[in-house]
Amino acid sequence: MDKKLIYLDNNATTKVDDKVFEAMLPYFKEEYGNPSSIYEFAKKANYAVKEARGQIKDFLNAENEKEIIFTSCGSESANTAIKGVLEVNKNKRHIITTKVEHPCVLNLYNTLEKQGYNVDYIDVNSNGELNLEQLEAAINYDTALVSVMYANNETGVIYPIEKISEIIKSKNKETKFFVDAVQAAGKIPIDVQALGVDMLGISGHKFHAPKGVGALYVNSKTMITPLIVGGHQERGKRAGTENVPYIVGLGQAAMEAQDNLKYEMTEVKRLRDKLETNILKNIFNARLNTKVTNRVPNTANIGFEYIEGELILLHLSDLGICASSGSACTSGSLEPSHVLRAMNVPFTAIHGSIRFSLSKYTTEKEVDYVCDVLPGIIDKLRNLSPFQDELEALKKMKAAVNG
Amino acid sequence: MDKKLIYLDNNATTKVDDKVFEAMLPYFKEEYGNPSSIYEFAKKANYAVKEARGQIKDFLNAENEKEIIFTSCGSESANTAIKGVLEVNKNKRHIITTKVEHPCVLNLYNTLEKQGYNVDYIDVNSNGELNLEQLEAAINYDTALVSVMYANNETGVIYPIEKISEIIKSKNKETKFFVDAVQAAGKIPIDVQALGVDMLGISGHKFHAPKGVGALYVNSKTMITPLIVGGHQERGKRAGTENVPYIVGLGQAAMEAQDNLKYEMTEVKRLRDKLETNILKNIFNARLNTKVTNRVPNTANIGFEYIEGELILLHLSDLGICASSGSACTSGSLEPSHVLRAMNVPFTAIHGSIRFSLSKYTTEKEVDYVCDVLPGIIDKLRNLSPFQDELEALKKMKAAVNG
Repeated sequence: MDKKLIYLDNNATTKVDDKVFEAMLPYFKEEYGNPSSIYEFAKKANYAVKEARGQIKDFLNAENEKEIIFTSCGSESANTAIKGVLEVNKNKRHIITTKVEHPCVLNLYNTLEKQGYNVDYIDVNSNGELNLEQLEAAINYDTALVSVMYANNETGVIYPIEKISEIIKSKNKETKFFVDAVQAAGKIPIDVQALGVDMLGISGHKFHAPKGVGALYVNSKTMITPLIVGGHQERGKRAGTENVPYIVGLGQAAMEAQDNLKYEMTEVKRLRDKLETNILKNIFNARLNTKVTNRVPNTANIGFEYIEGELILLHLSDLGICASSGSACTSGSLEPSHVLRAMNVPFTAIHGSIRFSLSKYTTEKEVDYVCDVLPGIIDKLRNLSPFQDELEALKKMKAAVNG
Repeated sequence: MDKKLIYLDNNATTKVDDKVFEAMLPYFKEEYGNPSSIYEFAKKANYAVKEARGQIKDFLNAENEKEIIFTSCGSESANTAIKGVLEVNKNKRHIITTKVEHPCVLNLYNTLEKQGYNVDYIDVNSNGELNLEQLEAAINYDTALVSVMYANNETGVIYPIEKISEIIKSKNKETKFFVDAVQAAGKIPIDVQALGVDMLGISGHKFHAPKGVGALYVNSKTMITPLIVGGHQERGKRAGTENVPYIVGLGQAAMEAQDNLKYEMTEVKRLRDKLETNILKNIFNARLNTKVTNRVPNTANIGFEYIEGELILLHLSDLGICASSGSACTSGSLEPSHVLRAMNVPFTAIHGSIRFSLSKYTTEKEVDYVCDVLPGIIDKLRNLSPFQDELEALKKMKAAVNG
């Protein structure tokens, strides 16, 4: 590809960090021993896994390394936590989650409903904020699990995990709390002890480790059965020969992410805010899909009213710009985002909503370029829109408001 | 580590092949797109996964690419196949497997027994060959699944999969057949159509792909539920963003393994045979634990009577030689091998049994070196053995037989 790549889809996946890459390299062809083997040669691989476990423990501020389970992805972390804890607490049949969870997690709950579980899906308001009263009221003696994401993948909205944790414990001490922190890791600090969660899952490829590795925190008071049954690896909680290179990479990525947090929360945020401000100022049919300020610093979700989002994405792609209309896991389906629907985003904007997600690699020049070319793309697509009357009315209205 | 490494534990894990390594490299920092994303940049990642799927289809001679599911390891392949097919056929509660399956698979069946399944474990004879009459007699109307490994990880004995497949279909057409081919892949040809199996699992790190990737063949007539529920990846059979680098690596490793099969079955076999012959000739208390010739070409399992295997391994390790006493997944436990116990290997040899597993990287010089140093190690340990009278008697007996 000759044209320059401007990658603004870091909530879908990220580029592997140079230091992560370097850290992994020795474990493919040199230190390739099986960590379970007893001879000297395998000890380096064994030690490397141990060291990475300590790094993830520190990254999440877990109390003990034994609380960290390495997995192959965020989906495996979620499946392990959710199925594992339900299996242990088989007498309880009620689950509470939200309408805006990642589709992977929602699919799992749909499957569990078919198996006889009773699942409540908590609403959000038009800014994507959770209805905590509804959540509190839903918890009962039969509630096995509450499952809430830390940050939404589409809007970036951060959920009040610590507060939810307090609500849960005040209503039913036996109810377990799982947090899908896949979109939070690397973007905001995570402290499982301060949050008071029982289980928390992360995925490496969302913070510059490779695709194919994740971790699950399970606090020492929470019992789960393994999803992958077999060998003694991960203290019997996850069988399979350890993916040493990626586990090392995950540990390194966690350290890099920790070091980068301040940059993420200041500089990446500044660029994201610049992108948002500029688009909203220069494109009259653009609307910010959430006005919440408590969002992860890298994510912007903007609706372009009366335009089809997929067309915007294809025009951006022609210029080498990568963005998305929702989660990559549901790309290709023409169904509008379940997150924006739950937020009651007007149907005029829901189909034309674009998520831009930045990273530490995003430059000011890239953001400026997008700000330069996007108005032209939107203008062109507006002229093709079948909603010319509505667009004209919107233009007049906005002009009147802006004075 | 200054001393030279002589790695003879390739059934535990293998070194990543140079070409596999090279093939993976672009997908970490350059072609890092999410295969599910719709923009141009992600198409290379998407295409790479597609290409690898074709390579695995060819490697296993599946009929269709849709029959290949990428997983994170052999254990995940086995868990997906076994739990997935049982879930679909919930009314059937009987399973047949063998006493010599990999501990990971056996652990899963032990778990299923606790959940109410009725599991028959088929015996082997002193050479490690399966009792097919017993297997045939065990199949009934309620048999959901038969599960037999292709090649044993400890002894290398190859099981008559095609014949077992015929037996199963002649007794109950609804019974599904899962084959754990983790130790066969790369050592002998695999042809799922000729074998007539319904499901077959492989693990990349046993044939020079990295640890952390595997595949599962599920023929188009066999339905399974996913183990990891979530996104639409792998046609809904396995959620989670695809591990593009490793999937590419697995495809490349399959091609390399296919090209290398002849070498494996001639040259690697010659070196294995040389090692065996030499040890049996020069060490009087050595015994070959199986006399079957139909074994994978790289594996030797030799018992050193009246000596503790772990001590042999540690002495070998001091010289940079890596071998093992059983599966790496059970290393560290002092329980004697369940495989050798099922074969009724005499207790005098079972604790002193060592598995040497070669690869395409094993050199004649390395084999010669092991042949040179091993007699000295065994001699030293024999002198420390508490069974001096028994050793003396054995020596006299062997001398009488040989001369």
